[in-house]
Amino acid sequence: MARLVMKFGGTSVADVARIRNVARHVKREVDAGHEVAVVVSAMSGKTNELVAWCRDASLLHDAREYDAVVASGELVTAGLLAIVLQEMGIQARSWQGWQVPILTDGAHGTARILGVEGAELVARFDERHEVAVVAGFQGLHRATGRVTTLGRGGSDTSAVALAAAIKADRCDIYTDVDGVYTTDPRIDDRARRLDRISFEEMLEMASLGAKVLQVRSVELAMVHGVRTYVRSSFDDPADPRSGTLICDEEEIVEQQVVTGIAYSKDEAQLTLRRVADKPGVAAAIFGPLADANINVDMIIQVVSDDTTTTDITFTVPRADYDRARTILEAVRGAVGYATLQGATDVVKVSAIGIGMRSHAGVAARAFRALAEKGINIRAITTSEIKFSVLIDAAYTELAVRTLHSLYGLDKAA
Amino acid sequence: MARLVMKFGGTSVADVARIRNVARHVKREVDAGHEVAVVVSAMSGKTNELVAWCRDASLLHDAREYDAVVASGELVTAGLLAIVLQEMGIQARSWQGWQVPILTDGAHGTARILGVEGAELVARFDERHEVAVVAGFQGLHRATGRVTTLGRGGSDTSAVALAAAIKADRCDIYTDVDGVYTTDPRIDDRARRLDRISFEEMLEMASLGAKVLQVRSVELAMVHGVRTYVRSSFDDPADPRSGTLICDEEEIVEQQVVTGIAYSKDEAQLTLRRVADKPGVAAAIFGPLADANINVDMIIQVVSDDTTTTDITFTVPRADYDRARTILEAVRGAVGYATLQGATDVVKVSAIGIGMRSHAGVAARAFRALAEKGINIRAITTSEIKFSVLIDAAYTELAVRTLHSLYGLDKAA
Repeated sequence: MARLVMKFGGTSVADVARIRNVARHVKREVDAGHEVAVVVSAMSGKTNELVAWCRDASLLHDAREYDAVVASGELVTAGLLAIVLQEMGIQARSWQGWQVPILTDGAHGTARILGVEGAELVARFDERHEVAVVAGFQGLHRATGRVTTLGRGGSDTSAVALAAAIKADRCDIYTDVDGVYTTDPRIDDRARRLDRISFEEMLEMASLGAKVLQVRSVELAMVHGVRTYVRSSFDDPADPRSGTLICDEEEIVEQQVVTGIAYSKDEAQLTLRRVADKPGVAAAIFGPLADANINVDMIIQVVSDDTTTTDITFTVPRADYDRARTILEAVRGAVGYATLQGATDVVKVSAIGIGMRSHAGVAARAFRALAEKGINIRAITTSEIKFSVLIDAAYTELAVRTLHSLYGLDKAA
Repeated sequence: MARLVMKFGGTSVADVARIRNVARHVKREVDAGHEVAVVVSAMSGKTNELVAWCRDASLLHDAREYDAVVASGELVTAGLLAIVLQEMGIQARSWQGWQVPILTDGAHGTARILGVEGAELVARFDERHEVAVVAGFQGLHRATGRVTTLGRGGSDTSAVALAAAIKADRCDIYTDVDGVYTTDPRIDDRARRLDRISFEEMLEMASLGAKVLQVRSVELAMVHGVRTYVRSSFDDPADPRSGTLICDEEEIVEQQVVTGIAYSKDEAQLTLRRVADKPGVAAAIFGPLADANINVDMIIQVVSDDTTTTDITFTVPRADYDRARTILEAVRGAVGYATLQGATDVVKVSAIGIGMRSHAGVAARAFRALAEKGINIRAITTSEIKFSVLIDAAYTELAVRTLHSLYGLDKAA
């Protein structure tokens, strides 16, 4: 007997028929003798509808009221799934975020989970063999007694936090793909599903553009050592396929040098030409951006033609591009640059693998391979287990496929 | 300065545009210096959608889960109204049922309010001049920590209970009509809006078929002496018309003998012919119906042609007609009747007025007037402030208009 948390997203609970399918997945695990808590999202489309109403009510809406409205979607799914499970003869009850309670801080709209008090829920596993159906994406800010939401994708975070709190043996994330792939299969049809991936690698994959899991939920799984299994909710509940287990690297026997290739189109590049090469200039540039909550990612600095000034190139999230330009134009006097250039048709391609720690020259091979294909590298960043290159967006697919082959990730033809 | 509870139903909050209109009504009262709590229903159609999903999930759904699902609709409206009020520069916050809390018993789906702990809400009137926007129709069963609903029309009850708890000067029920009429204006265009009506009369009106308010909310208003004002939410918020005040009879200066004519089509008639006229026969008939939770209303008993038996006629809610027939057929042996007859094409027409207490012969005048129109009376019941006649449904309009004129209720031509 194991204790499981099973999480189902919006497309998996889009209507009552699909909720019934989810219930069959739950029944399979209950029949196998497991203790089960299920975390559900709102029916797909419902959260967007609620968000649109809030915007329609006021563009500057109170985040506390936004949360009160938007968190209602998950209550519906949780109650309906409990009803369907009961009809299948399974003891079940729904839990709203404040009922568990899932406790968060007061950062409405993007609240962080502080703790989950799952004692009553666990007691009912024992006393009643009852499945707990928990509304995802939400919590309670105890000091004010108000409902909070965790931000988009928050239900994954709810599931992992609940799994950590009730000491679950595994957290199964059911989604619309059957696992984590070596790269995006829509870009490279030779992508392979990974049987296992380490927390660290998955964290980098998610941070660098892989959409399968939210960064926050992977972080949480890593910190608490929650073995997290990504699998498909569209499989036959009686005979589901394997997925990908995200686990401690000790659990992974055969470690590749590179595990996956990720890419992100959410980048924009900014270049300041002929910046005076004097102390404090970096602070003059990046201080105001930091103050405006704009994350600067890749930074490269090269000496200009005239040798007394430098050119500084860096990336920001594409959503912040216009704001960043405005800020940089405002500080032009203080910084003293000649011209400001920018580009949004860029992409960041990254290779991730724990094996890089013990293998030198992994990134160098990539630079060579990309150069051979005529792909110009605008910027580079590296860390212990990944490297990223910023390139023209037009070369996205070519670069991904080139690196995927280079590191032996292609599946057998 | 007064303290007001304002209640808006589903059609008044059907979309964000209409919620904005509601906010203007609220603003008018706030600008006048009043302390305001608002109770809202779900957007029209939303509760039906949620109920349909529950039915689709299982016809035998757990009432606790049904409540968890169905109570979510009001959370959306409460949050949206708070947002719109804030945009208009009015301090406001939403309160979910469990947050106030509105405490109920554990009768899920038809819970009764046990108490409202409105201290924090009231403190905020003073400290922040804050409008409280309360989700109607729902409460918290404290012993289990679960969400309950009050049944259809429950938001009126929420509003009156809240008004009683916070000692409001008035509870304004905004609805799709502009008050309580002497009779249904769709049946008689000479119906007049009443300026005032006593609690007792309103309770009879509601019990006997008038749809404007739920019986439970009028009961509660009467018990706690909550002055309740029925008015239109479709008026210009800047210049609303008058409505009808439901209040203590002492507040009503000019009392009519008859205040209103109500009718109800939710009736069915059953007649047992040639029942043995012996002790215990009434118990043998009505005991099993009571055990099945079927309310028996009008009862008349007349001696049959043969003088050793009687005929017993009574009414039951039309929804229970088939069940009642089945039960009566089952007890035929014990009761010993000759034939069972029934009719569902009947209507109960009632006249209500506190003045009947001090005026004799009020009902007798009606019987005469109806007989003159050729309307056959199948059954009669009277009480201190009302009488009812059961007649063929085909004569509904004629009977209502006849009584409306008879008691001088027609408006001036």
